[in-house]
Amino acid sequence: MKKTSPVAPPSRGPSDHDVRTQIVEAATEHFGHYGYEKTTVSDLAKTIGFSKAYIYKFFDSKQAIGEVICANRLSMIMQGVDEALSEAPTASERLRRMFGALVEGGTTLFFHERKLYDIAAAAASGPWPSVRTYEDQIRKLVAQVILEGRESGEFERKTPLDETTNAIYLVMRPYVDPLLLQYNLDLATEATGQLSSLILRSLAP
Amino acid sequence: MKKTSPVAPPSRGPSDHDVRTQIVEAATEHFGHYGYEKTTVSDLAKTIGFSKAYIYKFFDSKQAIGEVICANRLSMIMQGVDEALSEAPTASERLRRMFGALVEGGTTLFFHERKLYDIAAAAASGPWPSVRTYEDQIRKLVAQVILEGRESGEFERKTPLDETTNAIYLVMRPYVDPLLLQYNLDLATEATGQLSSLILRSLAP
Repeated sequence: MKKTSPVAPPSRGPSDHDVRTQIVEAATEHFGHYGYEKTTVSDLAKTIGFSKAYIYKFFDSKQAIGEVICANRLSMIMQGVDEALSEAPTASERLRRMFGALVEGGTTLFFHERKLYDIAAAAASGPWPSVRTYEDQIRKLVAQVILEGRESGEFERKTPLDETTNAIYLVMRPYVDPLLLQYNLDLATEATGQLSSLILRSLAP
Repeated sequence: MKKTSPVAPPSRGPSDHDVRTQIVEAATEHFGHYGYEKTTVSDLAKTIGFSKAYIYKFFDSKQAIGEVICANRLSMIMQGVDEALSEAPTASERLRRMFGALVEGGTTLFFHERKLYDIAAAAASGPWPSVRTYEDQIRKLVAQVILEGRESGEFERKTPLDETTNAIYLVMRPYVDPLLLQYNLDLATEATGQLSSLILRSLAP
């Protein structure tokens, strides 16, 4: 349905939104099967039954489609993190669960669907805006948990917040960055536990 | 000169040793120019002026030559670490300098000679025995410095030594593993300082 209000800005309306969603869903399936690198926009167009020109009406490039898929995946991981944190009783426990959920989410979403991992690796090596946003979200969450722990007296308050946040992010980075996780998969579960404990020792008052 | 003692085991003698050294030196130069992956033993033989068969008398494979080069490079890095540690007044300072020297050594030796980095990456992805030995040396050095700090009262003693050692190794790993360092080069110097401080906070009594 088109909007009829005279004050509304020009809009492609909900049907365009649906077409975008349809393209992204078809692309997710196609990339998941054949890989992101190996698929062209022509391949995609053929699969969906659209013309290539029609797809370019909605997305500037293959990367623009990959960006949406990547952003969707990363936001699913962050949802998992939010759920893991929701009932954690202390800041220490929140930090531990956060790290665990990030690694679990990354492992599941990117490595159980190997072909889609292409996208994550391409996105992280750029890095694409979706990955930058993801990193920012993680940093903000780390800062927030540290602040909570400082207020509750669980964590020390001498080290500048920026420095502590950044250092903890650096410890987590090899396991939460989509590009780096592939080199650390074997270690990921064991490492998450041991590194969480080390981080918590570093935060002790 | 051949050994003439009747009790000595059969030996190829020093001249064989010299040939090995000659092959390794020529290979280091050749790999440094053309890359390890792209060079064949035939290429090497041509450059040195030996027959391929003669080279195979001394090394089973290209990898066997690469192994020696890699081991030489890694042992140069460890020498740099030893020098950096020799005059450090405290265990904390030793830990900080150790991390710094490992990262500096890795960056210099593998990245200022880009083509030789091929070898390091191939060696780390295996991993080759030379890289395993290197990792063991780093772990042992970490454990030793922690013990010194525990004895001097600088570091806490509650956490099992194995756990502390392994967790600290995991924090250092993205910057000291030859395969991983390439993805962390931009960050390496800043990260080394911030992560050293985090590690030292985690070791506080």
